[in-house]
Amino acid sequence: MLNHEYFMRQALAEAKKACDKGEVPVGAVIVNHDRIIARAHNLTETLNDVTAHAEMQAVTAAANVMGGKYLTDCTLYVTVEPCVMCAGALRWAQISRLVYGAPDEKYGFSLFSPPVLHPKTAVTPGVLADECAALMKAFFEKRR
Amino acid sequence: MLNHEYFMRQALAEAKKACDKGEVPVGAVIVNHDRIIARAHNLTETLNDVTAHAEMQAVTAAANVMGGKYLTDCTLYVTVEPCVMCAGALRWAQISRLVYGAPDEKYGFSLFSPPVLHPKTAVTPGVLADECAALMKAFFEKRR
Repeated sequence: MLNHEYFMRQALAEAKKACDKGEVPVGAVIVNHDRIIARAHNLTETLNDVTAHAEMQAVTAAANVMGGKYLTDCTLYVTVEPCVMCAGALRWAQISRLVYGAPDEKYGFSLFSPPVLHPKTAVTPGVLADECAALMKAFFEKRR
Repeated sequence: MLNHEYFMRQALAEAKKACDKGEVPVGAVIVNHDRIIARAHNLTETLNDVTAHAEMQAVTAAANVMGGKYLTDCTLYVTVEPCVMCAGALRWAQISRLVYGAPDEKYGFSLFSPPVLHPKTAVTPGVLADECAALMKAFFEKRR
């Protein structure tokens, strides 16, 4: 069944790929009419590039598939609440919906005002939040 | 003389390249110990990619030159006040200083709270502000 949990599991699979590379485990997929058009995971260490968050790569890849820079008919699934950089990119892309797993109480976009996302972007937080958070927690505990 | 105006003129030269391509005219350079290590201009239309702001490309290119993702000894010169996406990238990069030209009263990062930039990032606004703003104004008037 193609529901929020199904697609979040795909994002989780991406997050696990990041984890295997020693990257902070965040994964994302972008869906257009029930079809995954982009998959990405955090690669900031591998690429030596702070802009290589999963969401940023997914936005770039999805725009390439869609043939246009606006993602007005797309949903981003991401395992952790996006930071302001990524939320800013989602704002410019005017994405239809953002679905995220675990909240980010330190860097999450929802801490900022005025709202960072486009007013037309719907937000669904907390999908498989415990699994998404557990992956992050395990990663940071191992690094201590 | 290698001062703020000198480097902002280099960023303006980049902005003019954007303008010539029909792109919103924003240009940026990143400087490390008086040496320009990255030059970029807005390419969102050309690349069909909302993430292709001048600042984002400059951060990626500079990290490549520096051999590390932190730009703690670098200054970004950009013709227009960065948006939250770009300011978020500068925050992750912990850039030493941001120098910008024209303010962006609609999308500028300074509209948001809590502060988007890293607390250690110094900000110098208003360098060649009139020239930077005039380039933007001429571009948008032509498009009407």
